[in-house]
Amino acid sequence: MTLFDVPFIYYLDIFGTIVFAITGVLAASEKRLDLFGIIVIGMVTAIGGGTIRDLVLGRTPVFWVVEPLYVWIIVSTTVVTFVVARFHPFPRRTLLVSDAVGLGVFTVIGAKVALNLGHPPVIAVMMGIMTGVFGGVVRDVLTGEIPMIFRKEIYATAAMAGAVVFVNLQWFMPSGMEAINAIITMIVVIGLRLAAIHWHLQLPVFLLSTPSERK
Amino acid sequence: MTLFDVPFIYYLDIFGTIVFAITGVLAASEKRLDLFGIIVIGMVTAIGGGTIRDLVLGRTPVFWVVEPLYVWIIVSTTVVTFVVARFHPFPRRTLLVSDAVGLGVFTVIGAKVALNLGHPPVIAVMMGIMTGVFGGVVRDVLTGEIPMIFRKEIYATAAMAGAVVFVNLQWFMPSGMEAINAIITMIVVIGLRLAAIHWHLQLPVFLLSTPSERK
Amino acid sequence: MTLFDVPFIYYLDIFGTIVFAITGVLAASEKRLDLFGIIVIGMVTAIGGGTIRDLVLGRTPVFWVVEPLYVWIIVSTTVVTFVVARFHPFPRRTLLVSDAVGLGVFTVIGAKVALNLGHPPVIAVMMGIMTGVFGGVVRDVLTGEIPMIFRKEIYATAAMAGAVVFVNLQWFMPSGMEAINAIITMIVVIGLRLAAIHWHLQLPVFLLSTPSERK
Repeated sequence: MTLFDVPFIYYLDIFGTIVFAITGVLAASEKRLDLFGIIVIGMVTAIGGGTIRDLVLGRTPVFWVVEPLYVWIIVSTTVVTFVVARFHPFPRRTLLVSDAVGLGVFTVIGAKVALNLGHPPVIAVMMGIMTGVFGGVVRDVLTGEIPMIFRKEIYATAAMAGAVVFVNLQWFMPSGMEAINAIITMIVVIGLRLAAIHWHLQLPVFLLSTPSERK
Repeated sequence: MTLFDVPFIYYLDIFGTIVFAITGVLAASEKRLDLFGIIVIGMVTAIGGGTIRDLVLGRTPVFWVVEPLYVWIIVSTTVVTFVVARFHPFPRRTLLVSDAVGLGVFTVIGAKVALNLGHPPVIAVMMGIMTGVFGGVVRDVLTGEIPMIFRKEIYATAAMAGAVVFVNLQWFMPSGMEAINAIITMIVVIGLRLAAIHWHLQLPVFLLSTPSERK
Repeated sequence: MTLFDVPFIYYLDIFGTIVFAITGVLAASEKRLDLFGIIVIGMVTAIGGGTIRDLVLGRTPVFWVVEPLYVWIIVSTTVVTFVVARFHPFPRRTLLVSDAVGLGVFTVIGAKVALNLGHPPVIAVMMGIMTGVFGGVVRDVLTGEIPMIFRKEIYATAAMAGAVVFVNLQWFMPSGMEAINAIITMIVVIGLRLAAIHWHLQLPVFLLSTPSERK
């Protein structure tokens, strides 16, 4: 992982991976999955977005095949969560904030991967969004839910805003400022996400002009 | 896009992309998705089939990463649909015909991509079907439906028939006739699809000889 | 298919493909799919796991594009199943045993593919599991079910145990013993699976310490 010049993004990536694995497991808690199912759901939530990003970019083998440390971290995290959650309720507020941090980090990394490969800004924005939110989409599909990001408070929209900010900063700022650009981006994502949770902000919902004929 | 010698296929591809984005949005209309969810569903419906085709063929980065014009077209289309659909009902009949045209174009393009890469006829037929119908499959999975193509009037079957016709025409006709082969194929797909809609044609349904033990 | 020195694995692979196609079709039997839907479900069940494995490893075009024989075998199998199942109930016990054999073969092949490409043991174990069980996961998603492997008797766990055994045998045994390693692995997978069916063994289920707030 020499993607960034600064190691703190690397540590944040590990942090985001752990947090997404935990939130994935807890989101699936009502489904009565067994231990293996829990591990798969934690895995999918934490690495699903980056996997789809790597596949469409042709960056294969995908990142966790190249660096299996991610696999070990997620397996450990889900097993610990599996045991601990039986005895201690998880602090919901802490998890929401941590999840916002994870979303910010993954958005930066997704956009950065695309820019590094020379892709245009619109693709970098899409890869930022995909890396941030598609793990949760696959998790929801596997557990039989309509993906939360389609219906909930500004979530993917926070990732999109962050990706747009990051791509513009990288374009206009002199090189070597990458760490600062990443921090500004994460502040945008985390700020939007926490504001949306606090004030229950939502995007407008799609409505047809007539009752649907398809019912 | 120099896939075809003639530009009219290129224009039809743009047309198919727009139509599939609209039908994707309308198909999801009962799900109360927000604006971002609508964009994702429009995107998935319009480029999902071609994306899966490119992935299994190892043709990466996938087509819309190479040519981001598709992304802009789909985002614009879905936003316009999002706004317009609040005020005007969409003409259902026009959409069904347009969707059939889109299915025909995408089937031709999918088969052509596989043949261009030197794959055998059976793979070209499969890629034609996948390009035509898998966008709708992913859309249905994301919105919590059993994919429509498994249950509805001859849809994938029309794509299959078209792909078989196109692969045979390309095989037996002298080169340079590609535009004519594409037109014949599209007539087959559109004709079959509209006939199926008009007379409610269906394939036979799978039945077990005994009531299932799995209930 | 010169993956193994011995042809008997090749024959078992064909056998596993046929069996998985049949079980896929039967698992979808309550969904009233049409003939085309049945073919897609049989295809997805039989080649879905290997396809995802090849994609994340960057081994493209995926195996069935390189060797379309798999496609022909699956189409023939599903059509025959479609017809025969109307008149004869399938022998459930035979199918369960055959499915366990298929799981064992696919686990061996998945792990072997990853080791051949030089990936570390943890990735080989994951690829063994994915090849064995992800076809069924995609099948269940397409038919609107929460994937069975998350809830049922030891299934993926049998694949995991087999993959761990195979990777260790390949590591410690002298080369040339591959056929024997494969046989030992299959005995482990089949034995675990049949024992789990017979005694209704299950992994522990995930429980939260407090009633979920998310209801």
